[in-house]
Amino acid sequence: MGIPPTPAISGLGSPLQRVRVILVSPSHPGNVGSVARAMKTMGLTDLTLVTPRDAQVLSSAEAIALASGATDVLGAARIASALAEALADTHFALAFTSRRRELSHGVVPLRDAARTLAAGLGANAGARAALVFGSETFGLSNEEVDRCQAIATIPANADYASLNLSHAVQLAAYEVRMACGAADVPVAVPREIATTGAVDGFLDHLTQAAVESGFLDPAAPKRFDTRMRRLFSRARMEPEEVAILRGLLAALLARRRKGP
Amino acid sequence: MGIPPTPAISGLGSPLQRVRVILVSPSHPGNVGSVARAMKTMGLTDLTLVTPRDAQVLSSAEAIALASGATDVLGAARIASALAEALADTHFALAFTSRRRELSHGVVPLRDAARTLAAGLGANAGARAALVFGSETFGLSNEEVDRCQAIATIPANADYASLNLSHAVQLAAYEVRMACGAADVPVAVPREIATTGAVDGFLDHLTQAAVESGFLDPAAPKRFDTRMRRLFSRARMEPEEVAILRGLLAALLARRRKGP
Repeated sequence: MGIPPTPAISGLGSPLQRVRVILVSPSHPGNVGSVARAMKTMGLTDLTLVTPRDAQVLSSAEAIALASGATDVLGAARIASALAEALADTHFALAFTSRRRELSHGVVPLRDAARTLAAGLGANAGARAALVFGSETFGLSNEEVDRCQAIATIPANADYASLNLSHAVQLAAYEVRMACGAADVPVAVPREIATTGAVDGFLDHLTQAAVESGFLDPAAPKRFDTRMRRLFSRARMEPEEVAILRGLLAALLARRRKGP
Repeated sequence: MGIPPTPAISGLGSPLQRVRVILVSPSHPGNVGSVARAMKTMGLTDLTLVTPRDAQVLSSAEAIALASGATDVLGAARIASALAEALADTHFALAFTSRRRELSHGVVPLRDAARTLAAGLGANAGARAALVFGSETFGLSNEEVDRCQAIATIPANADYASLNLSHAVQLAAYEVRMACGAADVPVAVPREIATTGAVDGFLDHLTQAAVESGFLDPAAPKRFDTRMRRLFSRARMEPEEVAILRGLLAALLARRRKGP
């Protein structure tokens, strides 16, 4: 599958309609249905599953039963073959984790993360955001988290923080809804953010330059890709910045012209 | 309403342990189990069912399966024959409703209601509060609502406000936890940040590469330096990231100088 290109910026509608919920490798059809219901109660409608265990989950009887009155959300949901594909046309992704990790970007409580996200959506009528949740058993991998711009955690009982997946989505959708309602306060000057797909293209270019220059041995890449992805995810690049750096890489890679 | 002064009761512990969840006439064993799990994730442990459809629901296989790691909450839950009985030793009860009603007391959004409740629990170490939820199908009767001191509503999509019972409890428990100030968030491992001098050295190196490659005309630098400084300031680089990018620039420049 491929997520179709988004329509032009006009007509994207309310901020809540520009928030995608992404479930990475969900196992239980019931949870997928419950997520659809939880989303719709808070006004969210855009659901994407990445490599669900059951490829037919969207039409499974259990998912449909638990979606209750939100079968429209289930019916419009898409399936992606990788997280990068699900994120390609978004501008800001929030990863949900309950584990303490070695991470370069800070972990933010859900409420604060929702406010940041709402401010971004409010400031830029063309921006799309994603809430990214891992599988019921394993959560998100570090590599998946690195594709997101921030990490949110749901404040919970330290002795038992094991929220059901659809309950976590319910809380996140609620906080985003609350934050969008309260987000009509003045925010920072809006700036244009590059899509995740554009940043991925730059990162590929950077790796290519590293290999061609002999800086990086493709047989022993160490953590070059990971480090660079983290750095530029944190930076939340603008399209013009991507263009400048790609132009510079192209110039550096170009063979020297004949003559003086 | 005001939470009446009560004699100090030693050993009641944290405010969250003085919050009871009451389910009136729940129909589905799975929901009861999911409620126990949702409560425990937020540190609530006191569950009472009023006239559940299945009197044996607390020991049903489905409830136990969905309680997951919260079977202790399920096991300690009590069954009451009337709401009045379940409320008897509490001081403040919050009724949850999504229906518009003819009511004598005002309906308060969940967040504000949770703050009022937390303030009462904080001010009086002997106070007990209750969160009261109706059946999946019928909600609470007016007579049941009248036994409570305030009515809370969960802000939701006006076109589809039908939250699953356990999801409503999850939101209520979360807001009570947040209001009680128990928002213990795991912090990210602190990371090392490059000095401004180190970042300046990198930016000089970047400009040098841009000029040597012919990408940047030093006579007309436009805003290259400004743009790059902004980008890498936002990113708050780590020393290792500075070292990687400087190594890459050096390799790219060496390759160019050597020529084809």
